Amino acid sequence: MMNESTISPTLQNMGINAKKSSKELAKISSRLRNKALEAIAEALDSSQNTIIEANQKDIEIGNSVGLTEATLDRLMLDSSRLNEIRDGVLAVASLPDPIGEEFDARILENGLRVARRRTPLGVIGSIYESRPNVTVDISALCLKSGNACVLRGGSESVHSNVALATLVRNTIGEVGIPRDCVQILEDQNRSLISEMLTMKGYFDLLIPRGGADLIRFVGENALMPVVTGGIGVCHLYVDKSSDLGMAKDIIRNAKIQRPTVCNALDAVLIHSSVANELLPELAKHLAGDGVELRCDTRSLSLLGEQQFPNVIQSSPSDWGTEFLSLTLAVRIVDNLDEALEHIDQYGGHSEAIITSDYEAAQRFLNEVDSSAVFVNASTRFNDGGQFGLGAEVAISTNKLHARGPMGLRELTSYKWVVQGSGQIRE
Amino acid sequence: MMNESTISPTLQNMGINAKKSSKELAKISSRLRNKALEAIAEALDSSQNTIIEANQKDIEIGNSVGLTEATLDRLMLDSSRLNEIRDGVLAVASLPDPIGEEFDARILENGLRVARRRTPLGVIGSIYESRPNVTVDISALCLKSGNACVLRGGSESVHSNVALATLVRNTIGEVGIPRDCVQILEDQNRSLISEMLTMKGYFDLLIPRGGADLIRFVGENALMPVVTGGIGVCHLYVDKSSDLGMAKDIIRNAKIQRPTVCNALDAVLIHSSVANELLPELAKHLAGDGVELRCDTRSLSLLGEQQFPNVIQSSPSDWGTEFLSLTLAVRIVDNLDEALEHIDQYGGHSEAIITSDYEAAQRFLNEVDSSAVFVNASTRFNDGGQFGLGAEVAISTNKLHARGPMGLRELTSYKWVVQGSGQIRE
Repeated sequence: MMNESTISPTLQNMGINAKKSSKELAKISSRLRNKALEAIAEALDSSQNTIIEANQKDIEIGNSVGLTEATLDRLMLDSSRLNEIRDGVLAVASLPDPIGEEFDARILENGLRVARRRTPLGVIGSIYESRPNVTVDISALCLKSGNACVLRGGSESVHSNVALATLVRNTIGEVGIPRDCVQILEDQNRSLISEMLTMKGYFDLLIPRGGADLIRFVGENALMPVVTGGIGVCHLYVDKSSDLGMAKDIIRNAKIQRPTVCNALDAVLIHSSVANELLPELAKHLAGDGVELRCDTRSLSLLGEQQFPNVIQSSPSDWGTEFLSLTLAVRIVDNLDEALEHIDQYGGHSEAIITSDYEAAQRFLNEVDSSAVFVNASTRFNDGGQFGLGAEVAISTNKLHARGPMGLRELTSYKWVVQGSGQIRE
Repeated sequence: MMNESTISPTLQNMGINAKKSSKELAKISSRLRNKALEAIAEALDSSQNTIIEANQKDIEIGNSVGLTEATLDRLMLDSSRLNEIRDGVLAVASLPDPIGEEFDARILENGLRVARRRTPLGVIGSIYESRPNVTVDISALCLKSGNACVLRGGSESVHSNVALATLVRNTIGEVGIPRDCVQILEDQNRSLISEMLTMKGYFDLLIPRGGADLIRFVGENALMPVVTGGIGVCHLYVDKSSDLGMAKDIIRNAKIQRPTVCNALDAVLIHSSVANELLPELAKHLAGDGVELRCDTRSLSLLGEQQFPNVIQSSPSDWGTEFLSLTLAVRIVDNLDEALEHIDQYGGHSEAIITSDYEAAQRFLNEVDSSAVFVNASTRFNDGGQFGLGAEVAISTNKLHARGPMGLRELTSYKWVVQGSGQIRE
């Protein structure tokens, strides 16, 4: 295990500057932080050519080293994507300021006024891959919530990330916010990532964004708190008493509406008494949607392999797999308990029940221990935008601090504010 | 760094049993959890002799190995202390159940009902020293909040701790709650503490209770989230415009009312324009209270060493010291900014300003970044009981999850509960 004394001077300086800037940022008014966000949006408009030029370098290098089409598409920036990024910044600017909000306020018997008041966390580090929009998204969310940030983007998008971060730094500097509230690590040496994970004294929170490997690596090795989220197996259980038309619609929506995201459906558990009626119909529709079904023995024999070319036998590892593709595991269960046990073993992210039975719905809501639990709705709703949080940093599967979609509030801490008139303790 | 494969079978089994029991406990009704707490209170009454006998063994061993009077007093249990422990359990039983409480509930435009619902964290580990009441306190708080716990008490109180934990285990077993919801590590081998700190897959949260060394050790080495609290330097600043009588009363209260606790005052910063009037009077009273003053050069020359035998020159390390005794550091500053800078460098726990100036009060509340910030009140109020949380697990100086006094709510997580009628995402 590395300790802080082995941190390279570059990172150490960034850490010191971040801490210092975060203290200045904490005193900066809501109005000035919003003004900075609006100025960033303007700069994104007026600097499209510069950004796209920088992005072209990444694309050229990506082409020459043979990045996949999918990766190249993820890192590509054009005018329309830059407009989306700009709109995202303006959306963050328009949200209520989480800082200074008071809650649990009360007057004690002795006359003391006690409240919890939201404060910035301090310094947030983010390590991310591919998509350069994260550079601006995280900067905007951190500025809005009064946090300084240190960014380390993917090496395949380094030119784009540096161009975007430079735009942000220059813009906030112009409106009077310390440039070092947003810093980006340009040096792409991977050992610096490991060093970042040991900088407990500098970072109050780390947010990894990207694939499961990155998120696990950061979660397992970081010495400071980490948002581990965005990964997990999502389940849907079709209960004995349920509207099978609704079940079919919700399963298709949860699986195909955007299969590459973390709240897309991975496994369906079907009560044995409705499997005969639901499964062949469902398999037919999903075949049309291009979905491959990985079926347990019972569901496989019910379907019969010949009729459905998109159906194969599941392997044991399928139950713990987040597919992120048009693949769905299917299992027949004999009751709610069996479904709950299965979910307890493999779930934790987003789980749904389709039921018209009151008691089954209540048990599912009570007993499933996941970041979001749904009755008669698609798992795809587990999202900060959908839940009305405005913006979303990540979907946490942690239990401490924040669980599920994390918005601006979840990027804050609080302090107790106590106003008295001379009270002493008896 | 140790990894989980090197965990001894004893601890591994305790971890597995804790996890399993926590899942059962999560389904147990509030009524049964309260019934268990009431039964524990009764058992504490009817088993006083057994507990006191076990405690006598600890006292005898403590005497023979030459523990200090203070330590022996901390670990001693008699009928009156057992009554206090019992009353504490009944107080926890009488608090509202944090589990199942919903907040931020709303109906979305599409008709989905979304809310956050409090859930247990899962398994809480606690590593503590000396005072055997912690065994019962933590057990009661965990049972009330639906969490299983694994306890590792101090070796000097092992007989008392095991007797109390056995009483708790037997009692909850009798009312129908799995005994392993409360487990105690009897093996006092210190290497097992280091092993506990690596059991990330088993413990959702660790709570160390005891001296600063223990809390720092756990905070720096644990791989899972830890409540680091109960340590920190507390400051009080007397502003230019302030009621000096109030200042004197609050300083004395914050320093002497209970000097051995974490929210007792460690350092006073006095505006130079009121130092002449306040300091000699204050020093006289504090001398009468038995308080030693460690003064910076300015305050020392103002007081003159001869007149006040309780006054000595401060050393640089005094500013970062939590005294936990009748010792107070004193410094004269020229303005609020100097006070804020000093507090920013050394504070973080509880800080107070004595002022009659509106702007100074607001700046202090806004700019001091500590778990609790006070205007015209004693730092001794930074306490769960005083703030109306009912019970207190610890006073956190973390920024993530919970800051300041942690009550039952702060021992919970939440999940998003979404109730629909067939909604799918567009």
